[in-house]
Amino acid sequence: MKLAVDAMGGDNAPAEIILGAIQAVKKYPCEIVLVGDENKIRDVLKEEPDWENLPLTIKHADEIITMGEHPADAVRNKKNSSIVVATQMVKSGECDAVLSAGSTGASAAAAQLILKRIHGIGRPAIATPIPTSKGVTLMLDSGANVDSKPEHLVQNGIMGALYVEHVFGKKNPRVGLLNIGEEETKGNEQAKETYQILKNMTTINFAGNAEGRDITEGDFDVVICDGFVGNVVLKFGEGLAMTILKLIKEAIEDGGVTAKLGALLLMPTLNNLGKRLDVSEYGGAPLLGVNGYCVISHGRSDAKTICSAIGAANDYVHSNILEHIKAALDTELLATGDKG
Amino acid sequence: MKLAVDAMGGDNAPAEIILGAIQAVKKYPCEIVLVGDENKIRDVLKEEPDWENLPLTIKHADEIITMGEHPADAVRNKKNSSIVVATQMVKSGECDAVLSAGSTGASAAAAQLILKRIHGIGRPAIATPIPTSKGVTLMLDSGANVDSKPEHLVQNGIMGALYVEHVFGKKNPRVGLLNIGEEETKGNEQAKETYQILKNMTTINFAGNAEGRDITEGDFDVVICDGFVGNVVLKFGEGLAMTILKLIKEAIEDGGVTAKLGALLLMPTLNNLGKRLDVSEYGGAPLLGVNGYCVISHGRSDAKTICSAIGAANDYVHSNILEHIKAALDTELLATGDKG
Repeated sequence: MKLAVDAMGGDNAPAEIILGAIQAVKKYPCEIVLVGDENKIRDVLKEEPDWENLPLTIKHADEIITMGEHPADAVRNKKNSSIVVATQMVKSGECDAVLSAGSTGASAAAAQLILKRIHGIGRPAIATPIPTSKGVTLMLDSGANVDSKPEHLVQNGIMGALYVEHVFGKKNPRVGLLNIGEEETKGNEQAKETYQILKNMTTINFAGNAEGRDITEGDFDVVICDGFVGNVVLKFGEGLAMTILKLIKEAIEDGGVTAKLGALLLMPTLNNLGKRLDVSEYGGAPLLGVNGYCVISHGRSDAKTICSAIGAANDYVHSNILEHIKAALDTELLATGDKG
Repeated sequence: MKLAVDAMGGDNAPAEIILGAIQAVKKYPCEIVLVGDENKIRDVLKEEPDWENLPLTIKHADEIITMGEHPADAVRNKKNSSIVVATQMVKSGECDAVLSAGSTGASAAAAQLILKRIHGIGRPAIATPIPTSKGVTLMLDSGANVDSKPEHLVQNGIMGALYVEHVFGKKNPRVGLLNIGEEETKGNEQAKETYQILKNMTTINFAGNAEGRDITEGDFDVVICDGFVGNVVLKFGEGLAMTILKLIKEAIEDGGVTAKLGALLLMPTLNNLGKRLDVSEYGGAPLLGVNGYCVISHGRSDAKTICSAIGAANDYVHSNILEHIKAALDTELLATGDKG
């Protein structure tokens, strides 16, 4: 797999992005093109004197899209920005996939404008793996689109189920609709209409409404929702986990010698658990629904997260999921009489 | 304060509800009417032989509204259900407030149909206190209504700010709009329109958009949102906290003698922290926007939670918040030219 990595995107770019890429080319069978300001990239690469012997190359791009910019406008106007150049390399066939930890909006806009949507997909979705007590649940959309129509949520269900099947290797995944109650009459208009479409579908294993607490229970393999709700939930989860951790640390600090000794003895166990729950172990989230492989990483990604994300991108590309999604969509369109 | 308690509502009703009421009348200056099946209530009261010397009475109601029923239909049809009878006691002036741990939908429907909405409020909202790293944030609406219009969210802001000021005693509370980004251009149509109204208001201290992770950071005193999003967030938080706890316990079980000893030493510290984060310490959530004091408790409430909720109801009634909300709404309506 040949991957275009946006070296300039993310809070810790370019250093952590590049160090993550170096780790990844040593760990996974892949070739990486670092896209961005060549001088800045070379500066970081000095830390790895032999880098030219690694499957790493540089593609210069002198513009950067920042977090505050309007994504679609910025993608249209900054043709030489690292994310646009990296995405163009997938479009031209030079690379198999693109990865960025920069503005999520800009990554999604570049993918939509340059790679275009898959025929039959109204809106692409970000599919985020969430650690649960039983494994991983894929939640989508976690922020690519808001005010989605029921058919967009249904498309999220189709894409999410195929992803779980072909990338995570789980057959017949259980798909849940994020809602505020179990009964099919519950929820807002969007959820109620979506339920009615899903319950009659035979192509996905619809397992009913998933309430907020079901996400981490792990009884659903895929949870589908509007990007507004998904994004709020994801960031709330991050914040809650960080707050709990912070309060535990403070409590231990204030807890005297006994508490500190207890914490010390418990540390290896908690570190192992932390590793299992650490989202950075899962790396990036794929943007599903565009004509190409695009992976979005967290803005706060460090080298380890980027390395994991590249590993995930590797599995993603090798799963050939794009072709599976296209085939499934063609079947759906055929069934609904749209030959478009 | 005289409180009508729905003795039949909740997963642990009637026993835990009644035991909680007994604890509360001993702890707070209040009088309680237990509403529900008299025989079943008397059965539980046997555990407290001297109960007739406590400020406790029984009001018989022989019907129950269950979780699966359509809330408004059930309230209309089951005139003698515990929640309807309890709410009627507030309407008639016999009681100052009503509390239930039964179907949230039924409590909210009974309050709306019997007590009616405050003039100027389009939709009542459930205001849930969420523990944060700095104290408590009030989130509303957490599930009374979905598909809210921007003006409903604005009304949530007005009511939430008054609640924090008059019940929690915090002056000039910071109000945030739950959204997927800080910038005012971010979000779905509902959030973008709400932002435009809020930013021009002088009656509340609008502090901008709050992202999911800001809820537990504690930088906002009030976070307003649609009931669909609020309910999902609340249940997700519950699920996540329970999952983390479960995984920590499992990790300790598997961690051998060292981990178990560490856990033992750390236990008192973690128990203190757990108590601070325990939502049952906060008891119930008020339904704001109706003409009367109505408190909704978690379906899984035990006696301790019910006792705390009764304490919260006591503060709530004594705050005279209803009159403050009415006065603020009249000012808003006057300002916007609606004299209705």
